[in-house]
Amino acid sequence: MPRFPLQYEVVVDKGSASPLEIHAAHRPRLVAGPPPDFGGSDVWWSPEHLLVSATASCYATTFFALAERAGLRVGGYRCVAEGTLDRGPDGVSFTGIRLALTLRVVADDVERARKLAIDTKERCFVAKSLKCPVQVSVEVSAS
Amino acid sequence: MPRFPLQYEVVVDKGSASPLEIHAAHRPRLVAGPPPDFGGSDVWWSPEHLLVSATASCYATTFFALAERAGLRVGGYRCVAEGTLDRGPDGVSFTGIRLALTLRVVADDVERARKLAIDTKERCFVAKSLKCPVQVSVEVSAS
Repeated sequence: MPRFPLQYEVVVDKGSASPLEIHAAHRPRLVAGPPPDFGGSDVWWSPEHLLVSATASCYATTFFALAERAGLRVGGYRCVAEGTLDRGPDGVSFTGIRLALTLRVVADDVERARKLAIDTKERCFVAKSLKCPVQVSVEVSAS
Repeated sequence: MPRFPLQYEVVVDKGSASPLEIHAAHRPRLVAGPPPDFGGSDVWWSPEHLLVSATASCYATTFFALAERAGLRVGGYRCVAEGTLDRGPDGVSFTGIRLALTLRVVADDVERARKLAIDTKERCFVAKSLKCPVQVSVEVSAS
């Protein structure tokens, strides 16, 4: 484990008529703006899609770190992630994120992979930073 | 306001040796993986950078929506956003996100812009979805 606390910096710029640009050192620039639901577009990344992406990618990197430590080889990994934005007692916020995971491993590892996928949620930094629940469902097939 | 609940879907795929790929309909594909702190790279987007990006872009889209409603013209907008990941009682999670905002508006609107920037935090869907505090500092200059 690295030495905490760790800092992560991004810069958001907006010109007078353009959507947002997000920069973070060497990473490819991201173009962002409101989703179509809020008068924006589906050609750029919305904050809502970025939050779901942060959760799903944190889950994935955590899963692969734990799998490597356990010596578990993963042949295929896909996660369909869906975040729900809804009204609550304190106004509009995310009320849940569902991760539907599909894994492919060798036959002997099916049960171990399933257990690892469930354990991953408790270690996922982003899931632990959210107020709303993150639900994980897992389908494991043998390759 | 649109009809709630709203759903936001992304798909995360990983091949056997590649970093993660994140897809969301028509948006440009995102390449993601662990940050250097966790054995990854700074050439791709990390979950940590995506969470900070989600927060900072949600803050920005909310600010511009409120500014438009208030008839406030914003000549320049930049936000440096920094998220802190640290150990807490329940393990590692984000413990705070700081947004340092620089705005340029016409001289008559300086105070109004400052107030709007502070009010924005209470409306930001992503900030309201996080357990950790989001701190906003604002510098407004007259153009």
